[in-house]
Amino acid sequence: MDLDLAKRLAQPANTKIVLCVLDGLGGLARQETLRSELEGADIPNLDRLAARSEVGLTVPVGPGITPGSGPGHLALFGYDPYRFDIGRGVLEATGIDFDLGPDDVAARGNFCTLDAEGNVTDRRAGRVSTEVSAGLVDRLRGIRLPGAEVLVEPVREHRFVLVLRGKDLGDNVSSTDPQHTGVPPLPATAGDEASARTAVLVNDFVSQATALLRDQHQANGLMLRGFARYPHLPQFPEIWGLRAAALAVYPMYRGLAKLAGMQPLPCPGGLLEQIDTARRRWQDFDFFFIHYKKTDAAGEDGDFERKAHALEEFDQHVPAILGLGADVLIVAGDHATPALMAAHSWHPVPFLLRSAFCREGNALHFNEQECLKGSLGVFPAIDVMPLAMAHALRLQKYGA
Amino acid sequence: MDLDLAKRLAQPANTKIVLCVLDGLGGLARQETLRSELEGADIPNLDRLAARSEVGLTVPVGPGITPGSGPGHLALFGYDPYRFDIGRGVLEATGIDFDLGPDDVAARGNFCTLDAEGNVTDRRAGRVSTEVSAGLVDRLRGIRLPGAEVLVEPVREHRFVLVLRGKDLGDNVSSTDPQHTGVPPLPATAGDEASARTAVLVNDFVSQATALLRDQHQANGLMLRGFARYPHLPQFPEIWGLRAAALAVYPMYRGLAKLAGMQPLPCPGGLLEQIDTARRRWQDFDFFFIHYKKTDAAGEDGDFERKAHALEEFDQHVPAILGLGADVLIVAGDHATPALMAAHSWHPVPFLLRSAFCREGNALHFNEQECLKGSLGVFPAIDVMPLAMAHALRLQKYGA
Repeated sequence: MDLDLAKRLAQPANTKIVLCVLDGLGGLARQETLRSELEGADIPNLDRLAARSEVGLTVPVGPGITPGSGPGHLALFGYDPYRFDIGRGVLEATGIDFDLGPDDVAARGNFCTLDAEGNVTDRRAGRVSTEVSAGLVDRLRGIRLPGAEVLVEPVREHRFVLVLRGKDLGDNVSSTDPQHTGVPPLPATAGDEASARTAVLVNDFVSQATALLRDQHQANGLMLRGFARYPHLPQFPEIWGLRAAALAVYPMYRGLAKLAGMQPLPCPGGLLEQIDTARRRWQDFDFFFIHYKKTDAAGEDGDFERKAHALEEFDQHVPAILGLGADVLIVAGDHATPALMAAHSWHPVPFLLRSAFCREGNALHFNEQECLKGSLGVFPAIDVMPLAMAHALRLQKYGA
Repeated sequence: MDLDLAKRLAQPANTKIVLCVLDGLGGLARQETLRSELEGADIPNLDRLAARSEVGLTVPVGPGITPGSGPGHLALFGYDPYRFDIGRGVLEATGIDFDLGPDDVAARGNFCTLDAEGNVTDRRAGRVSTEVSAGLVDRLRGIRLPGAEVLVEPVREHRFVLVLRGKDLGDNVSSTDPQHTGVPPLPATAGDEASARTAVLVNDFVSQATALLRDQHQANGLMLRGFARYPHLPQFPEIWGLRAAALAVYPMYRGLAKLAGMQPLPCPGGLLEQIDTARRRWQDFDFFFIHYKKTDAAGEDGDFERKAHALEEFDQHVPAILGLGADVLIVAGDHATPALMAAHSWHPVPFLLRSAFCREGNALHFNEQECLKGSLGVFPAIDVMPLAMAHALRLQKYGA
């Protein structure tokens, strides 16, 4: 749904919507058992819920497109992931809970190893330890640039985040990563006029940094990529008229939700704490985004059994989630992460929506095969929010 | 299908298309029986027909969007309901068989009750009787405005239609309905330059009208909203190359069809007369739109049994409709009206298309669950006309 239309049709109501995102939810069947992770898992609560829900499968971005975490979530929040692009730098900053502002350009940084000629010999600096990396980041904080503040934060191992803060910075700046060893890092170049000064600042930063790292054996160089400005997303609460809370363990998902204008409520304790927080703050919000990471983590590790267990763990919390008493309860995924592939994938993702206005009874279980029988069919993830709003009786009639 | 492409591909043929629109066709299952109106109704003819047809479910406007009658029908006629918008005033005028022209701006009027300070105390003037309302409308006909003819027609109870007829009128005029009691009606304001003079005329009308209604207790004020110009729809017969007849009991549906360029043939007697008229005029037209209202009326009243009976009544006429011998017979709905909700809804609408070129055999019955199994799946209502044309062998090959 066009966001302007959404804004026009949204109407106030007292209904509550809970969106549970099981990261990397969908999977693929193993040849040994011909069962997917969902089919192999013992998930009686989700199965029962599916039988009483409208079910289907979401296409996160487009057919054949494997989404990153950004587009996968944006689509579920109702944003066209082709139109609203969250750059790598912003996502990296978001992932460490860095509070990006409107004057910021963020980039992902890698320490690398350079030889005497300045050619890259290891693009990851031997995966230098997080501790060493943090010390080097501290050195880089001493760098001064004309007209822009320099902020550097460690991430993990060889990775860090660079944020330039200043007026009139652009983010159309090329990567300095040559993608190969045996050649020097590339100079940053500007792709448009608005980014010309930024590219100069970036090259200035790199040359000062290389001087500061000269005494290092492993991490004596660096590369920057994914330059991205703070994205001006239309704000979720204004579009849909929903006071929205984001309940997530990992900062990246809280950060993504925050970029959309949701209020992050940190829940380091996991599902139990997330559900409990939703219960305590029930009157303060209309929309609750609950993020569950373990499914994706196990899928990325290619661990079929652990992914099935993660699904079972979520399943055990379903009664408590139902106990919240939402008018619309959704269980969805931002993308599939089949353990068989040990990676995100493009496959459509099982989906269920429970409300008092469901066409139910199509699926007996919550899995890839049964959801295919559902009344929602295979549909774009960007349609999830309009459906949620409709079932919450929060959309006016269109036209007379 | 893009209408220019439709015009390019349409080719002449001797085939006939009958489009039956069961208003508010789709529904929801009651918890007591787990059956929807269609599932509960005894509709052997529709069931048999569905088994020999291509079936699916139409999405009238978009996922989660509950359509009004205008967009619901426009989509079935092949018009993008986002692009072609029929305003409330035009629909209201159409609904009383008012013959709108290209120089007209129509608005929906409500009589209301004002207190001594001019504040609204009842936005519907106590639902004053249609007879009293008609007398007051007669008074308003005496109002004269500079450069525009004033036409006023009663509708029902407190409702009436105002039409301003004149050159260069605009319809971007704000509602005068304050939506609350305890405050005076709002002045009309123009949203663009082209509507500035129209807003002045509207305020002039309101002030003259208020003077004329001063002696009334209940209906001593009025409010105007839904200002809309006569919509210039590309004409259906020119797009599709079809001589099209509209067979409808209610003027609003004849009016909608007329705006699209179909020829309305009034059939106050209902289905029997509609089918009979189609039979008598069979040679004069290629396309017959048959509108059936009772399903929606019962749904809007929240009367599950009456809606099921309305479906059964339609079902009894199916043999006669088949007897017409159309090459393409379609049974569709403009939107769902679940008795459970007593309102239009966003749910996809059961659909069947019978021709000699069907992929049939997917559904055993004509209802929400069985149509889901069909070869057409869940698809946009705007695709109905291209499908009808194709099955009527009225579309040329695309490309070489």
